[in-house]
Amino acid sequence: MQYHLNGELVPREEATVSVDDRGFRYGDAVFETCRAYGGEVYAWDRHVDRLREGCETLGMAEAAPDDIAVRVAETLDANDLADAYVRISVSRGVQPGKLTPQPDVDPTVVVYVKPLPRGGVDGEPVTDSYRPDEALMRDVDGNVAEGATSNLFFVDDGVLKTPAAGSLLPGITRELVVEFAEAEGFPVETGRYSLDDVREADEAFLTNSTWELRPVERVDGIAVGDGPMTSLLRRLYDERVEERCY
Amino acid sequence: MQYHLNGELVPREEATVSVDDRGFRYGDAVFETCRAYGGEVYAWDRHVDRLREGCETLGMAEAAPDDIAVRVAETLDANDLADAYVRISVSRGVQPGKLTPQPDVDPTVVVYVKPLPRGGVDGEPVTDSYRPDEALMRDVDGNVAEGATSNLFFVDDGVLKTPAAGSLLPGITRELVVEFAEAEGFPVETGRYSLDDVREADEAFLTNSTWELRPVERVDGIAVGDGPMTSLLRRLYDERVEERCY
Repeated sequence: MQYHLNGELVPREEATVSVDDRGFRYGDAVFETCRAYGGEVYAWDRHVDRLREGCETLGMAEAAPDDIAVRVAETLDANDLADAYVRISVSRGVQPGKLTPQPDVDPTVVVYVKPLPRGGVDGEPVTDSYRPDEALMRDVDGNVAEGATSNLFFVDDGVLKTPAAGSLLPGITRELVVEFAEAEGFPVETGRYSLDDVREADEAFLTNSTWELRPVERVDGIAVGDGPMTSLLRRLYDERVEERCY
Repeated sequence: MQYHLNGELVPREEATVSVDDRGFRYGDAVFETCRAYGGEVYAWDRHVDRLREGCETLGMAEAAPDDIAVRVAETLDANDLADAYVRISVSRGVQPGKLTPQPDVDPTVVVYVKPLPRGGVDGEPVTDSYRPDEALMRDVDGNVAEGATSNLFFVDDGVLKTPAAGSLLPGITRELVVEFAEAEGFPVETGRYSLDDVREADEAFLTNSTWELRPVERVDGIAVGDGPMTSLLRRLYDERVEERCY
């Protein structure tokens, strides 16, 4: 496996950073997880926009390089990968001083890839990173916010519901699912919901770029599971991947 | 400068970790900042206890090596340092899979050092890492919690006050200051305080292992500053350092 490190392809075992890199010292970095299908990163523009926004938020607006798309393509090519997990990491790099960040940034930019075969339109989602114990997190008011690495949707009486942005990381797959549902004419509602709302839902699923849409089997032992809206949205997601990437 | 990396002294510029190290990928690591005076790390037992507790909290109880004190001493020696900033970092290392940590841990352990001359009993505190814009953080209820990298104390009508543990990182210097004040017979109170309480205080100071006790000149433009209790506590801290480390 080869990674792309600061503009060069390097064998994974030689891809290293200084222990003084602020990514290692403080976790002072941004990362973006994407998924490639047929050699194309799905929803690339949205991912790269979010990556740049993240860098800007951290006060290193120029840290994500202009040729990042080229670096990703080169990494997929070098590893002969079409269907893959793709991760881009941008840290603030090595700086003098201690915790306070300095304005002059020489970032560390890594493109990671890993094979991730596609489930296909009729197949089951790939369960490579499936965690039966995904935690649902609540905001400070006790409302359900999101999964540890995913966003939450549930279906209540024909309405697709998802916690409103604010106390959560609004994922790109979440955004796409809302758009697909609206395009199909499904009622979509964002709001503040209790854990009981989710426990009593007709269907529930989690989303992120690598899991796509993944049904929630049970919440605290209470069966929720799959259903017609989840199935349809999964199919729409798969079809869109087919259209865009193959 | 030499660092201690996974049991070996290495020149700083050769001290590297894999980009797959979870410390770099996710910030999945613990670090402990200490200060050495005269070749001795001050309050070492407390620092090493807290480091081990941090590792345990992250589900890697055995990650901090038994000989960590030896590694620190070797690093100070190799760099011919007596008065120094000392930082120990323990990451979960490289693991298969993605975000979910695995129980089998091969940690990455780094000892960093940097010269940090001592201010001395009568001198001014070293201002190497002084940030005039240290942020005071509040908890979810709006009470004052701590500085970004320090704990807060203030003096109100002869009583030394500090926010109660709960929504803050209770520092080792904070703990020592409380003990010194109690030993002197000063009234000490921990509780929940508003920003106004701090603005209206007679004295205020911040603590951490590298800053020791540092007076707060002003809060949001309102002068607070130094005073007799701060000066006395600084002197006691310095004297204790003298006793223990020289």
